Amino acid sequence: MDSMIYLDNAATTKTAPEVVDAMIPYFGELYGNPSSIYEIAGKSKEAVDKGRSQIADVLGVSPEEIYFTAGGSESDNWAIIAAFESCKSRGNHIITTKIEHHAVLHTCEYLERERGAKVTYLDVDEKGMVDPKELERAITPETILISVMYANNEIGTIEPIQDIGKIAKEHEILFHTDAVQAFCQVSIDVAACNIDMLSSSGHKINGPKGIGFLYIRRGVKIHSLIHGGAQERKRRAGTENVPAIVGYGVAASRAWNSMESRTKKEVQLRDYMIDRILREIPYCRLNGDRVRRLPNNVNISFQFVEGESLLIMLDMEGIAASSGSACTSGSLDPSHVLLAIGLTHETAHGSLRMTLGEDTTKEDIDITVEKIKAIVKRLRSMSPLYEDFMKKQH
Amino acid sequence: MDSMIYLDNAATTKTAPEVVDAMIPYFGELYGNPSSIYEIAGKSKEAVDKGRSQIADVLGVSPEEIYFTAGGSESDNWAIIAAFESCKSRGNHIITTKIEHHAVLHTCEYLERERGAKVTYLDVDEKGMVDPKELERAITPETILISVMYANNEIGTIEPIQDIGKIAKEHEILFHTDAVQAFCQVSIDVAACNIDMLSSSGHKINGPKGIGFLYIRRGVKIHSLIHGGAQERKRRAGTENVPAIVGYGVAASRAWNSMESRTKKEVQLRDYMIDRILREIPYCRLNGDRVRRLPNNVNISFQFVEGESLLIMLDMEGIAASSGSACTSGSLDPSHVLLAIGLTHETAHGSLRMTLGEDTTKEDIDITVEKIKAIVKRLRSMSPLYEDFMKKQH
Repeated sequence: MDSMIYLDNAATTKTAPEVVDAMIPYFGELYGNPSSIYEIAGKSKEAVDKGRSQIADVLGVSPEEIYFTAGGSESDNWAIIAAFESCKSRGNHIITTKIEHHAVLHTCEYLERERGAKVTYLDVDEKGMVDPKELERAITPETILISVMYANNEIGTIEPIQDIGKIAKEHEILFHTDAVQAFCQVSIDVAACNIDMLSSSGHKINGPKGIGFLYIRRGVKIHSLIHGGAQERKRRAGTENVPAIVGYGVAASRAWNSMESRTKKEVQLRDYMIDRILREIPYCRLNGDRVRRLPNNVNISFQFVEGESLLIMLDMEGIAASSGSACTSGSLDPSHVLLAIGLTHETAHGSLRMTLGEDTTKEDIDITVEKIKAIVKRLRSMSPLYEDFMKKQH
Repeated sequence: MDSMIYLDNAATTKTAPEVVDAMIPYFGELYGNPSSIYEIAGKSKEAVDKGRSQIADVLGVSPEEIYFTAGGSESDNWAIIAAFESCKSRGNHIITTKIEHHAVLHTCEYLERERGAKVTYLDVDEKGMVDPKELERAITPETILISVMYANNEIGTIEPIQDIGKIAKEHEILFHTDAVQAFCQVSIDVAACNIDMLSSSGHKINGPKGIGFLYIRRGVKIHSLIHGGAQERKRRAGTENVPAIVGYGVAASRAWNSMESRTKKEVQLRDYMIDRILREIPYCRLNGDRVRRLPNNVNISFQFVEGESLLIMLDMEGIAASSGSACTSGSLDPSHVLLAIGLTHETAHGSLRMTLGEDTTKEDIDITVEKIKAIVKRLRSMSPLYEDFMKKQH
């Protein structure tokens, strides 16, 4: 797979070799259960403590505020369901946005359908930006939770989290942010942003799959989602996934240490790619904000092109990309995010997401742009819609 | 750690080398997200399908009935919470037992406290056995779920699952069993036992931590616990933990293939160990059923001894064991299982669980028995209670 150009780092990333190396002893040699008391278990416990500290250091919080989960989806579910349950004596209203990840949206829909929640799904502007004023107007005396993602997984837009956090604090409402795409891509100041809960996932930062965390600010009293043993200070049951926690800690440290140089490079490549595509391919548009954007995200709609066909033809050329979030691939529904920023179903279907990674080179970008140019031209040449359109132009 | 004698395989097991080897390519090379459509993602999807088939084969069910989770605790939570939600129009009563794992008990307590469930916690006899007649008498028109573990994690007692399943079916009540300790230790026939849902965990069978499954019989309509993406046929959101699923599949296959010879050996060693201890150490008793017992479980109460002291002194001799379930270690509360079978707090505190594994040898058992004899003797010599008792005897 070395010849592959992988531009789907928002879907998942390669686990870095030093991350795998760090994990391996905890499978076969240091396999103890951290809850036990003998020597080998003590080493597992130390490893879990170290991973927690590494992550806490990156986020600038206390290790006691980091709770390991099985991933971003569990973290989102936990934050939202538990906040709803824990605050139900105060109200039943949640504010979120139309462009959240499905782990937030479907959890909110579950709470509406099954548990009597009222949920406001805020609109976003054409760049995918939430309006803090509109958010503030949506607050009612029943509002118990605001959940707005730090940065969007499809179009890369970075939300005005600090403004939203300020509003949440003024109104004494819990504030959760899904930072699965943002953690170690942008600098996050949970204190300045008044973030009460933050979700993250290991496999988005060259760590392992099957591990995530929920940051819960000290003093925030929410229930558990997974009940049982006393792990994670009695808040998340289940034997600690020691190798994955070790790998996650190493991945967070290395992603944090490399963040400045890596994202600087990514921003350059990203902007170069966007510029080339917009300049060299007619009838396409950039989705998301040009500046307030994740360093590694490119999302372009190509008129008169089926995104899925484009993806398949790119794959045949050894280039991996996405037509939306990976979680919705295989579905024929257009992306809810692209619809929310005002795209028609047709335009949404012609969209391509390319997300750069730490190994992406300028050569990768050049090859990819050339391939896209050729494929888009070919697909358009087969499109009756494009033919009609061109006839009308002349 | 090679000189260690590890007798805590019910807490966790060493991940087998061939399991780790099978996992490694899916970290660093074949890292694609199975939900994507390009080539590398296709290989991840194939790997997930294969792991699912391997597990389905062991359980004798269809791969479509296997849903991957983060472990046994999540599986238990899912089965119980989702069954409650999905059946709430029919009733709110759950029947379980006093000796379940905390992942079942605390989930039931959550449903009672927060969601209006009524839960019957059945007593067990002095061997830890549930009485199917008593279970049947506990059924009301409101009963929607029966959850009884296949085999107990502390005392190894194998429950009359087939009788219970028959009753559940006759009364058209969903039947869930926590088989975390039983899967690949005893032969499970989900059809003959009328099991609707079954929980299992990877790291108890020499597979990786952080992975489990919930078997959900085709036709059983229960909601999701983790909402979000469309993974696991829309029933469990979150990017599939590909390496762990691969490892779990290999672990299940190898544990199943070795089950007959392994458990035959374990039963011999187990019975040899029990016989030697009961014969050579005065004032101790076996907890759990002598015959209907997990092949690898030994649980003994030593009068006039603190289990924690015994554990620590065994650890100093390089022997790893447990004084209860690992999940409650570090707590000073006596085991709820040992109390449920009628032990006093004092006797429960003097209990030791030793769970054999595939690598356990007769020499390990002999060394351990000798060490226990010496340690028990020493601890009793320091016990004023023992001194008083001995004076009264003479």
